[in-house]
Amino acid sequence: MNQHHVPAFSLPTQNRQVLLAKRPVAIPQADDFELDTAAVPVPVNGEFLVRNIYLSVDPAQRGWAQSAMNYSEPVELGSPMRALAVGQVVDSLHDSVQKGEYLYGWFNWQDYCIARSEHILSRIDPGLAPLSCFAGLLGINGVTAYLALTSLGRPQAGDTVLVSTAAGAVGSLVSQIAHNLGCRAIGLTGSDDKVAVAIERYHYDLAYNYRTADLDQALTEAAPDGINVFFDNTGGEILDTALRKMAVGGRIVQCGTAAVSTWQPPPTGLRNEREVLTRRLSWNGFVIFDHMPKWPEAIGTLASWLREGKLHYDEDISERIEDAPSAIDELYLGKNRGKRLIYIG
Amino acid sequence: MNQHHVPAFSLPTQNRQVLLAKRPVAIPQADDFELDTAAVPVPVNGEFLVRNIYLSVDPAQRGWAQSAMNYSEPVELGSPMRALAVGQVVDSLHDSVQKGEYLYGWFNWQDYCIARSEHILSRIDPGLAPLSCFAGLLGINGVTAYLALTSLGRPQAGDTVLVSTAAGAVGSLVSQIAHNLGCRAIGLTGSDDKVAVAIERYHYDLAYNYRTADLDQALTEAAPDGINVFFDNTGGEILDTALRKMAVGGRIVQCGTAAVSTWQPPPTGLRNEREVLTRRLSWNGFVIFDHMPKWPEAIGTLASWLREGKLHYDEDISERIEDAPSAIDELYLGKNRGKRLIYIG
Repeated sequence: MNQHHVPAFSLPTQNRQVLLAKRPVAIPQADDFELDTAAVPVPVNGEFLVRNIYLSVDPAQRGWAQSAMNYSEPVELGSPMRALAVGQVVDSLHDSVQKGEYLYGWFNWQDYCIARSEHILSRIDPGLAPLSCFAGLLGINGVTAYLALTSLGRPQAGDTVLVSTAAGAVGSLVSQIAHNLGCRAIGLTGSDDKVAVAIERYHYDLAYNYRTADLDQALTEAAPDGINVFFDNTGGEILDTALRKMAVGGRIVQCGTAAVSTWQPPPTGLRNEREVLTRRLSWNGFVIFDHMPKWPEAIGTLASWLREGKLHYDEDISERIEDAPSAIDELYLGKNRGKRLIYIG
Repeated sequence: MNQHHVPAFSLPTQNRQVLLAKRPVAIPQADDFELDTAAVPVPVNGEFLVRNIYLSVDPAQRGWAQSAMNYSEPVELGSPMRALAVGQVVDSLHDSVQKGEYLYGWFNWQDYCIARSEHILSRIDPGLAPLSCFAGLLGINGVTAYLALTSLGRPQAGDTVLVSTAAGAVGSLVSQIAHNLGCRAIGLTGSDDKVAVAIERYHYDLAYNYRTADLDQALTEAAPDGINVFFDNTGGEILDTALRKMAVGGRIVQCGTAAVSTWQPPPTGLRNEREVLTRRLSWNGFVIFDHMPKWPEAIGTLASWLREGKLHYDEDISERIEDAPSAIDELYLGKNRGKRLIYIG
């Protein structure tokens, strides 16, 4: 049985919401949001009411908030900020969703959410792991780490895997998955503290502080035969440097672009097509929501490794919904230690 | 039986060679080469002597001549320029290579070449097509067009395929292969004449002169649902523009970088990683020499289409070895019409 943070049921009283008030051009800032309170909505046929327990904070929220081309429609101004959350069903007029069930899905930054089937990302088995895990290790972060690495990175035992944002919610798992698959992992992160954590907790063989290291030289020494898989969450100059250290036939998994703070106006960098050609790279973009059919397999494997002690994860949980507006910016500043969540259960 | 340019055998007298005299930084120019004459070499055990008939001129020779990182060692200064050629074996001390046989391989810009097994790219069946075809349509150009498009471009019937260097030795075949596979083809080329040829001879549904067209607008109109496959031989601004018109899940085949005249110092351009991510692109480099086991399949399919009238090809053949030194530069200037060859049979 799950022993963590299972909320006692209580009758809904009010619905606190974090609304997107302004359209951010770069990283969303605290003052792009407004806190508001609304009545708790009532489900109609086919809907159910979720009471959120853990609100997730994710780098991808930057893209969801912006108006620029992305893989999803931008969040409407004045609406609750789009977010993933772990919650419990407190009322249901949906045939196959039961009151009391725990779900992970598109429930946004608010206390209560009216939802339909299409808002569910996964149904939670609370016996498998602590509830918070389903928003991180067994949510988009872990499933992204696993599926992006295995399907696009195609690591072979003995490969060298480079990970940017090595100590982040995704990167901290990529190295451990790579290790479990027989690969070497090299990490890049933004502080000496995180370098130490990466090596001590996340099974990196080597890690560097990209703010102070000579990255070109570090990668030449760390991967003398070249990098086979680059799991990139940053883009920018880190990408340009790493791309020139790839082994022939190397795979780049483009999972995020955290190092580039704005795309308007379009930033420039080194031309990379000759590297793609001469090194015969395979450079692929990964968006987790394209891969829903593979979630159960990924969650199953991750949960087994967790039980076997082969995965360590960290969470950075605060308990005030008022912390949400500044939380995306803090992620991009690298202030979090592990998966950033807000507990409002 | 082959009815084209089968040379009468004659005893070797002298070996004219086009030597690489200077190391080019950008596109090799005529004065980077020197013509010289050497004695015809004599094969020793395991070797054979090839008399070249068609010398091939290929954009890839730029990379072979340069010292910068490439997929092969740079040509040594003072050596015959590395080149592919179609030739006939005139003497053999190799168990499985027979005098009289026609071969396509690494025989360089010269009359005669001492070669070993590893220098053979394909053994020629002269009944299948004219000899010259084996240096183009059934040589690296055609096999590249076929294998790069099918293995990395993964075209589905109904897809829109964009090709840069639409009228070149590779591009002119990509469109026809795409058409044979049920796709639409859009071509980019460097003159209005070539636009006309692309549509009339190479089965492009639409073609544009990239020197005069508004490329962004042209591609928006030509591919309103996005480009599924971009077969890119140019790189540079054409790539940056086309990449922003790719459909979600689109594939970019990086086959050449003809639009970028030098890589020293490293040129800059638009950052493309966000496009790779949000459009979930798959951007892959292709070098034909990685794919030798698939040559027979490719040659078989191309030769069938040729017999069925489903492939048109053009050749631009001169008959003087003295034309070789300026020929690479002329390719990059787009002066050729079809596959550029030098007949010295």
